[in-house]
Amino acid sequence: LGSPLKTPGVNPDLASERLTASFSVEKLTARLDGGAEHTRMRRAIVEAIESDPAFSRENQYFQSQNERYEAAVRRAVHLQKKMREMGWTENGPEIKYIYRWLSGDIAFLLHRVFMRSISVLGSDKQVAKWIPLATEHQIIGSYAQTELGHGTYLQGLETTAVFDIATQEFLLNTPKISAMKWWPGDMGRSATHTVVFAQLYVHGKCYGVHPFIVQIRSLQDHSPRPGVTVGDIGPKMNFEHTDNGYLMLQNVRVPRENMLSRFCEVQPDGTYVRWGSQKINYFTMTTVRISILSDEVILPLMKACTIAIRYSAVRRQSKLKPGEQEAKILDYQTQQQKLLPQLAAAYAFHFINIYLHELFDRGYQEIQGRNFDSLPELHAFSSGFKAMVTQYCTSGVEICLRACGGHGYSLLSGLPSLYTRVLASCIYEGENTVLFLQTARFLIKCFMAASAGQPIPPSVTYLSSAKPGKCPAKDKLDFLSPDVYLKFFQFSRLLSSSAAKLQHLIQSGAEKHEAWNQCTVQLVKAAQAHCHYITVKIFVETVEKLDNKAGIQKVMKHLCDLFALHGIFSNAGDFLYDGYLSGAQMDLVTASYLDLLAVIRMDAVPLVDAFDFTDKSLNSALGSYDGQVYQRLYEWAQKSPTNQQVSPAYGKYLKPLLQNRLSKL
Amino acid sequence: LGSPLKTPGVNPDLASERLTASFSVEKLTARLDGGAEHTRMRRAIVEAIESDPAFSRENQYFQSQNERYEAAVRRAVHLQKKMREMGWTENGPEIKYIYRWLSGDIAFLLHRVFMRSISVLGSDKQVAKWIPLATEHQIIGSYAQTELGHGTYLQGLETTAVFDIATQEFLLNTPKISAMKWWPGDMGRSATHTVVFAQLYVHGKCYGVHPFIVQIRSLQDHSPRPGVTVGDIGPKMNFEHTDNGYLMLQNVRVPRENMLSRFCEVQPDGTYVRWGSQKINYFTMTTVRISILSDEVILPLMKACTIAIRYSAVRRQSKLKPGEQEAKILDYQTQQQKLLPQLAAAYAFHFINIYLHELFDRGYQEIQGRNFDSLPELHAFSSGFKAMVTQYCTSGVEICLRACGGHGYSLLSGLPSLYTRVLASCIYEGENTVLFLQTARFLIKCFMAASAGQPIPPSVTYLSSAKPGKCPAKDKLDFLSPDVYLKFFQFSRLLSSSAAKLQHLIQSGAEKHEAWNQCTVQLVKAAQAHCHYITVKIFVETVEKLDNKAGIQKVMKHLCDLFALHGIFSNAGDFLYDGYLSGAQMDLVTASYLDLLAVIRMDAVPLVDAFDFTDKSLNSALGSYDGQVYQRLYEWAQKSPTNQQVSPAYGKYLKPLLQNRLSKL
Repeated sequence: LGSPLKTPGVNPDLASERLTASFSVEKLTARLDGGAEHTRMRRAIVEAIESDPAFSRENQYFQSQNERYEAAVRRAVHLQKKMREMGWTENGPEIKYIYRWLSGDIAFLLHRVFMRSISVLGSDKQVAKWIPLATEHQIIGSYAQTELGHGTYLQGLETTAVFDIATQEFLLNTPKISAMKWWPGDMGRSATHTVVFAQLYVHGKCYGVHPFIVQIRSLQDHSPRPGVTVGDIGPKMNFEHTDNGYLMLQNVRVPRENMLSRFCEVQPDGTYVRWGSQKINYFTMTTVRISILSDEVILPLMKACTIAIRYSAVRRQSKLKPGEQEAKILDYQTQQQKLLPQLAAAYAFHFINIYLHELFDRGYQEIQGRNFDSLPELHAFSSGFKAMVTQYCTSGVEICLRACGGHGYSLLSGLPSLYTRVLASCIYEGENTVLFLQTARFLIKCFMAASAGQPIPPSVTYLSSAKPGKCPAKDKLDFLSPDVYLKFFQFSRLLSSSAAKLQHLIQSGAEKHEAWNQCTVQLVKAAQAHCHYITVKIFVETVEKLDNKAGIQKVMKHLCDLFALHGIFSNAGDFLYDGYLSGAQMDLVTASYLDLLAVIRMDAVPLVDAFDFTDKSLNSALGSYDGQVYQRLYEWAQKSPTNQQVSPAYGKYLKPLLQNRLSKL
Repeated sequence: LGSPLKTPGVNPDLASERLTASFSVEKLTARLDGGAEHTRMRRAIVEAIESDPAFSRENQYFQSQNERYEAAVRRAVHLQKKMREMGWTENGPEIKYIYRWLSGDIAFLLHRVFMRSISVLGSDKQVAKWIPLATEHQIIGSYAQTELGHGTYLQGLETTAVFDIATQEFLLNTPKISAMKWWPGDMGRSATHTVVFAQLYVHGKCYGVHPFIVQIRSLQDHSPRPGVTVGDIGPKMNFEHTDNGYLMLQNVRVPRENMLSRFCEVQPDGTYVRWGSQKINYFTMTTVRISILSDEVILPLMKACTIAIRYSAVRRQSKLKPGEQEAKILDYQTQQQKLLPQLAAAYAFHFINIYLHELFDRGYQEIQGRNFDSLPELHAFSSGFKAMVTQYCTSGVEICLRACGGHGYSLLSGLPSLYTRVLASCIYEGENTVLFLQTARFLIKCFMAASAGQPIPPSVTYLSSAKPGKCPAKDKLDFLSPDVYLKFFQFSRLLSSSAAKLQHLIQSGAEKHEAWNQCTVQLVKAAQAHCHYITVKIFVETVEKLDNKAGIQKVMKHLCDLFALHGIFSNAGDFLYDGYLSGAQMDLVTASYLDLLAVIRMDAVPLVDAFDFTDKSLNSALGSYDGQVYQRLYEWAQKSPTNQQVSPAYGKYLKPLLQNRLSKL
């Protein structure tokens, strides 16, 4: 059966999609990379990594948790060697492309957090002692904050560190099971040391949560140190390569010098001293939320769009027109409505991510100049956007997966692991509902200040703008004007009505915290609406600044319009509520929105090609550049361990059943 | 550290939730089971299965795909033995409880479909030959319909069966790679036979898709028969226990007698004869969609609610009131807003499922009396409800998973496997978007008929009711009246505007199929709205019929109201659109909705207790009846294979790194 299985280059159904692009794919790629020279550097690095078999992810979908962990450690160790060979450094421009390609599928990421926490929170002496050991991997570190019973609410941590003046040591204990450290990466099997967050007690008085460096395993034989119980927390939806760990401490002693002491210290006589501002610590947490967005959240959505859109241009199913060939599923309006808004969102988030990084770089400079004014705004931004982008991208990846039908459900499509990976981002680094409520608290404060005529940060001045009257648009084309649709999102009704309800409840005698709790469902909506508005605004501003030489501005304008109108179409109630839009106008929005789907569909494949993922980095039987999806599914399935052996089930159970027949014949 | 790890019975935080139930849990359980005697039978069967170690699912979350498959075959073989021992039969009342407990985690389910297809499509002679062999497991069957390139659109299947007069055989072939059979369960490693669906050719003429019994493996040594290439399609998001297979046929010959011939036959001279109606075939497909809802779709949502709600009554995080103990997360409005609408939906779907089964039983009786009038309505019902219930339950399980934070992400919570399992139901037995459009086609037809004054089925007469004016409700309590909220859902605007758009497009010169395609996004919404309306209506009618002796009617009324108001709150735009509800009225809906959350929260734990799942059937470290979540997470994690061995990664990669340090010391 040689002939039906041959792979004849690029699938013609996919090739034809590339012939009609309305813009230059190469130019758009360069624009996304921030310049053609960045594209060249990125491609050279990807080439160097992909040509090295030690980094291969072939057969990854067949591996057990133990095999994945081993491979991740192998990759981490090999990476050090590779970096020396190639002359790449931790602070060089290459590093982001390296980690982006590795997609976090590597060990010792928490070792890097261990180092960062010592650098930020440790005294100069502590930095001088520990950082060189960690840099050379002579010790392997982890970061033990979260406990079985405590995640987001850090003040509630239950691990204790009691200062013993007699021995000048801290005595660390896990007083109850909910106080076990749980989840820290690199801790289950790798780490020799970890930073433990514990409630500090001196002379019976509690000083709150502080960080301590604790050795947990022997450097000789890797066995747990006395008093230490440590292990792996077992299987998860993803992150099989990471040894997320548990840790129980029973009278574990560490010297006084092991409490990280850049900002506070316990002196030999038990005196507790604190100096410097703690605010900068919060800023670190804040920046982490922004730093994960690109690689851990937006990239998975871009990959999922690439896989689903290429597959939808190759998959044919049912007939659109009687008598014709079966249609590409991308030609069905319902399929366009599933995938194209996700594509628009991927671009929208790429641009908002650039904006957020610029904002935080500016904020960091101000803070270094000891100006902390922007901290509340930055905190509100990082909380709200982390929550919004992770939520949107998780839902987007799931839509892409489901849009590929049965084959999307196969691990070989690559979509399930993208989904289970991005889903975690909704939970880690702050649970999303809690984060939205932090943003809401900031917005309520600003709204109250604006009502009282006080100045508020520029990003929220729209909150004080007058209540809009009626939308003047009369034709469906009017809704393709950013001036028109930006006004939609500027309304602050969700916020003002929450503020009014809050005040009303308090005036009616409710306690403040209870009143707040009763408004939280609406406050979350208000925070989401705020982030949505900023995202549309930045997309509009980005499009305005684009050059249109290679057709890029035009196609980006379509995506921007689609992102905006999809938001209105999906939240119609918010716009109809106070009559700003009439039902008839909502029909025009719907008409414009559906028209845009048909327009963008023509460029859909080139728009995902522009993300410039290699086949190896997609690792998807459905998403490869050549579109030979069935061939690849078959080739990959043959390598599955389920095909590598006769199952013991045959000898044990099937054969006796079937032999039963033979004996009767 | 003995003391902190002790498990002192039921967690007091969970016990206290059970003291304040407003209704009798035992009475509600009996009501859900359809009578106390059913509850007794179910519990006896569950007890018999759970006490048999051969059915244990302990350590399931640690097993590889190969191990899961072997265990599933073991269970299937053991079940036959157990049934003989216990006197249970395939047609007895026990069978549904057995399979419900097994949760489909067993082999030979497609073997049952193989048998059903022969019973329905085979001639008496074929039934007499094959059914006894299959019943005794002397052969193992599968059902090979779906191909790599074809799922939902059966007419497009590409496998061929050419009749060879000379040998009186059919010659079966896989002409190209997209024609490979792909996905059939029990085929990858177990089956000896399968029913292959192929395009029948006689004398060069194609007669469309027909079913053929094909032997694919030797009964002696299980090796593939000549011309047969067969294997397992590899890893999936779930169903690791099932050997979904691929199959390629090269000139495989089967005797003329192997074409299933209850309805048509190829005679020895090549004459093709067809008799009887094919409609009954569609009815079989239709009933399968309804039959999966209970165990595969609604049950996972009930389990997820049980796990998430019990955990939320035990998990404490952050302080609601300063100075107090940390609050149960179930006391946060945002957590209630996540979980309680899912709980209401689980009950709503339980009742609609009973209704659908009654409807289909009646339909089946009519059809046996050769009255096929109800077929279109039944088809529309089965398509729409399969799509709506699977979609809603999948999203509900995901919400439950995310509401449990990090621990929900651990496989040990049981939530990830519930999610990945129920997600598949959106795809199999007909892709949901395609199914909604089938319902929409039926609704459009009825709408047109009603407009022309023709009679329409009772379930859709509301489509011809007059356009409603304004909603008269003035107080938030008004929205707790079913008379008020049922009217909301009765509107047919989504449908009538789609119909108008369709007509307008056709009158403007668009071809019919293209006009249809351009309306599909809106048509899907219209079909969803229809199914939602019927669900609310049946919930209301069920509540009205309930006895209120044990407080059951009252608590069910709350859930019914919540389900209805959640629907309005979440789709506000549809109700505000034509001014049926004003913005001020929508505020009243919101207020009533939020009030209900606080009311139902008080009964949340008893309401999931009433589902009466055993700990073993939940298989969740977070969801057990005693609420000892941290203890159980720790105990289970210790059994993980990641803790059973020192990873080879230590010797290969970590030790050399760390020794590096020792050598320098």
